[in-house]
Amino acid sequence: MITINKNEAIPLSKQIYMSFVDKIRSGLLPSGSKLPTVRQLAKDIEVSLVTIMKAYKQLEEDGFIELSKGKGTYVKMQLQPETSKTGQDFDWQLSIPDYLHRSQYARFQDSDASYHFSSSMIDPALFPNQYMDQLIEQVFKQNPRILSQYGGIQGDLALREKMTQNLLKSKIETTAENLLITSGSQQGIDLVARTFVGPGDVVIMEAPTYPGAIDVFRSRGATILTVPIDEDGMRVDMLHALCEKHNPKLIYTTPTFHNPTGTIMPLQRRKVLLDIAESHHCLIMEDDPFSDIYFDRKPPLPIKSLDKSGHVIYLKGLSKTIAPGCRIGLLAASGSIFKRLYAAKANMDLGSPLLTQKVIVPLVDSAKTEQHLKRLRAALKSRRDVVLAVLKEQAPRGVTCFIPKGGLNVWIQLPAWIDSNVLLYEANKRHVSFLTGSACFAIENEHSTLRLSYSYANEKLLQDGVMILCEIMQAMQPSSTSSPTF
Amino acid sequence: MITINKNEAIPLSKQIYMSFVDKIRSGLLPSGSKLPTVRQLAKDIEVSLVTIMKAYKQLEEDGFIELSKGKGTYVKMQLQPETSKTGQDFDWQLSIPDYLHRSQYARFQDSDASYHFSSSMIDPALFPNQYMDQLIEQVFKQNPRILSQYGGIQGDLALREKMTQNLLKSKIETTAENLLITSGSQQGIDLVARTFVGPGDVVIMEAPTYPGAIDVFRSRGATILTVPIDEDGMRVDMLHALCEKHNPKLIYTTPTFHNPTGTIMPLQRRKVLLDIAESHHCLIMEDDPFSDIYFDRKPPLPIKSLDKSGHVIYLKGLSKTIAPGCRIGLLAASGSIFKRLYAAKANMDLGSPLLTQKVIVPLVDSAKTEQHLKRLRAALKSRRDVVLAVLKEQAPRGVTCFIPKGGLNVWIQLPAWIDSNVLLYEANKRHVSFLTGSACFAIENEHSTLRLSYSYANEKLLQDGVMILCEIMQAMQPSSTSSPTF
Repeated sequence: MITINKNEAIPLSKQIYMSFVDKIRSGLLPSGSKLPTVRQLAKDIEVSLVTIMKAYKQLEEDGFIELSKGKGTYVKMQLQPETSKTGQDFDWQLSIPDYLHRSQYARFQDSDASYHFSSSMIDPALFPNQYMDQLIEQVFKQNPRILSQYGGIQGDLALREKMTQNLLKSKIETTAENLLITSGSQQGIDLVARTFVGPGDVVIMEAPTYPGAIDVFRSRGATILTVPIDEDGMRVDMLHALCEKHNPKLIYTTPTFHNPTGTIMPLQRRKVLLDIAESHHCLIMEDDPFSDIYFDRKPPLPIKSLDKSGHVIYLKGLSKTIAPGCRIGLLAASGSIFKRLYAAKANMDLGSPLLTQKVIVPLVDSAKTEQHLKRLRAALKSRRDVVLAVLKEQAPRGVTCFIPKGGLNVWIQLPAWIDSNVLLYEANKRHVSFLTGSACFAIENEHSTLRLSYSYANEKLLQDGVMILCEIMQAMQPSSTSSPTF
Repeated sequence: MITINKNEAIPLSKQIYMSFVDKIRSGLLPSGSKLPTVRQLAKDIEVSLVTIMKAYKQLEEDGFIELSKGKGTYVKMQLQPETSKTGQDFDWQLSIPDYLHRSQYARFQDSDASYHFSSSMIDPALFPNQYMDQLIEQVFKQNPRILSQYGGIQGDLALREKMTQNLLKSKIETTAENLLITSGSQQGIDLVARTFVGPGDVVIMEAPTYPGAIDVFRSRGATILTVPIDEDGMRVDMLHALCEKHNPKLIYTTPTFHNPTGTIMPLQRRKVLLDIAESHHCLIMEDDPFSDIYFDRKPPLPIKSLDKSGHVIYLKGLSKTIAPGCRIGLLAASGSIFKRLYAAKANMDLGSPLLTQKVIVPLVDSAKTEQHLKRLRAALKSRRDVVLAVLKEQAPRGVTCFIPKGGLNVWIQLPAWIDSNVLLYEANKRHVSFLTGSACFAIENEHSTLRLSYSYANEKLLQDGVMILCEIMQAMQPSSTSSPTF
């Protein structure tokens, strides 16, 4: 059912605890699932009874499981109001261990809530759909055999050449030979992780950070260490000591409109971060999905633009801004690091589809796209403002947030008396979805934050949905007149 | 530079040997690359000097590396005639170990040979391109916002429903809830491996088998065991003893028009295989890219059609037959096995692009597609016959092959005096490409077989290219009049 790594520095009981927490939070072990007995698990994964008992005790204390005397141990945490079960169970399958520690997106991405605030997707109405349709017609006329051909492992040359030009705008000097087309940034993260990160390798992440990246690193068995975020992004001042002590292999960062907090890392910090990576010969993965979505002024240049020594692997997604239906992302790296990522891409899928690549070529850097981005920025800023306004007026005291300067998300801090899991459970009943903050933390057991994406729902839905959320929070407020319960 | 697994049953020196062989054969360590010194590697991966020396000695004996006294150890095997090098080297990067053991496709797939016989892709001229273009126009009219939307993690529902119907033709009874859309079968293989296969887990494969699958399992650190092929596919009679002894987690098979040999596993063997998997609670991954490409009669039903207990994960690629430019594959599984694969897909790429899925929906099971498949079968049979005819007339004595009854490949056995690596080196000089047999073996050190794909080049190119290949082989023939050299 779970896998552990006996060579790792992290204590076994903690590893077992984390494995179950990850699976429970991802919904892979839903409420009511039976856990193996202490004896059985001890036998399966070959560790002592005491170690298992310690992990189970902690899980019980933290409210994830409950022991029913004589009956066994069950998952307690109920994430969503129950829906009917489908299909057969095939009990024997449960004894097959897997390497999937968590998958927050499997839980949150496909939500069909009316007030869909859980994923950073952009409202289809905000794209120039009619124009794009015309454009596609032309693409097909120019490439009559487009459905009959593979795209090549590295990706379409025309697209890579166009993106080389596009990256020059951000002062990233590269060539088409050093670019790889991926199926979205998520595949880029996965590609780097599968190639360079393995059991026990140390990866440094921001806390909080993008859940999809945590999912991937955890699945690789990485030892994740975290650095907190302040208003200027990652606290790079804490990084040096961490690197000295733990010799990390990779630092993952979203310096521009950080996901989920929306903060920007200033140029000075970017330089320090690169210096540290260079002096420790550690890779930086710079994830840059949002830099075109700024609300006030253009953000600082990417870290990759400063990189002369091949330490930065740069990922740019086009799904957020140009064409979500194509799932095209871009990876820029150099030397043997690039060569190995290229070979790994062949193992993953032999290359992204040609069709989606060819469709995107005329959209890159076109006048129409520039116009679209300008409108998109204005529309998203206005949606952000709706959320901030409702929160300011309606949220109970103690609810605070960063004001995002770009990107698609607002990061909300809850007062101590609101548990974000309980809030989500109640919100789901009223068709509101959001991402619990716990999804954005690799290690910390966090339950007083949430990420609200304002990019998918329109202003009316945002207004109403955030209002409902505030109502629920108000109702959770401990009445000042009631007597204490203990 | 390389990673090893100290808990594995395979001796460390053998692991080190295999790691270098894999990297050299994939071109990840090209001819002339310097290997770390024995001392340095012993320090880096923390094993004894003796173990490293043993591995290096074997590598030298097998012709992969050479020791240059006082200068160091270098890769000797030259895979391709040299081309100019591009870009900077970033030497420091070489000290970053990776988890990429091999990637044969990175070496063979992107070949730009005039006589391209190295990859199982279908000639774009064999598709009803004009018809497909018209169809796409309709798709866009019906889905005006197709570029603005994500496809969902599991994949487009309309496509899954259509494929549920399609699978019924092969007596596979499933539902749209138990189907997952993947980016080609390659991603399906990768998905299963990353979820269920880890360091030291035993995977059973056919020998030879599909190189893309070996690449994936090796990258997961699996212990691969092989079962030989005869004219009826995998020798399942040898499987039982292997399972008793090694308790495998997964059996990978291509029972229908096996890649690379083109053989068919009869129904009776399929039943035995499933029985064995059930009695050992081991998963079967049934890869089925070619069942629609039969030359004489329809092949037996897939193993999945017999599976009542959720042991079979079935993969069907649509890239070979319907639309290569879409890279759409399909995975069918049940119970928690399916649920975990679904969650892993979210971690990989958040779902395949919507565009490529919507385009393929009207092509599934349409009358036009049935017509196309009929023509495709005839065209490929005729191309196969061209290859067989030239080989029969022109190949030197000792060259033999299976006659493929379907699929895209012919598997050629060379006489002892032709080394397939040397043959490829000479063939590349004359713009002919093929896949060396060694790519299709997970363990065996094989150099007297090759796979020739007859699906991409037309009949004229096949005729000329295979003729050139025969000329080269003739020239390698040891003259019967010359005196022996030793």
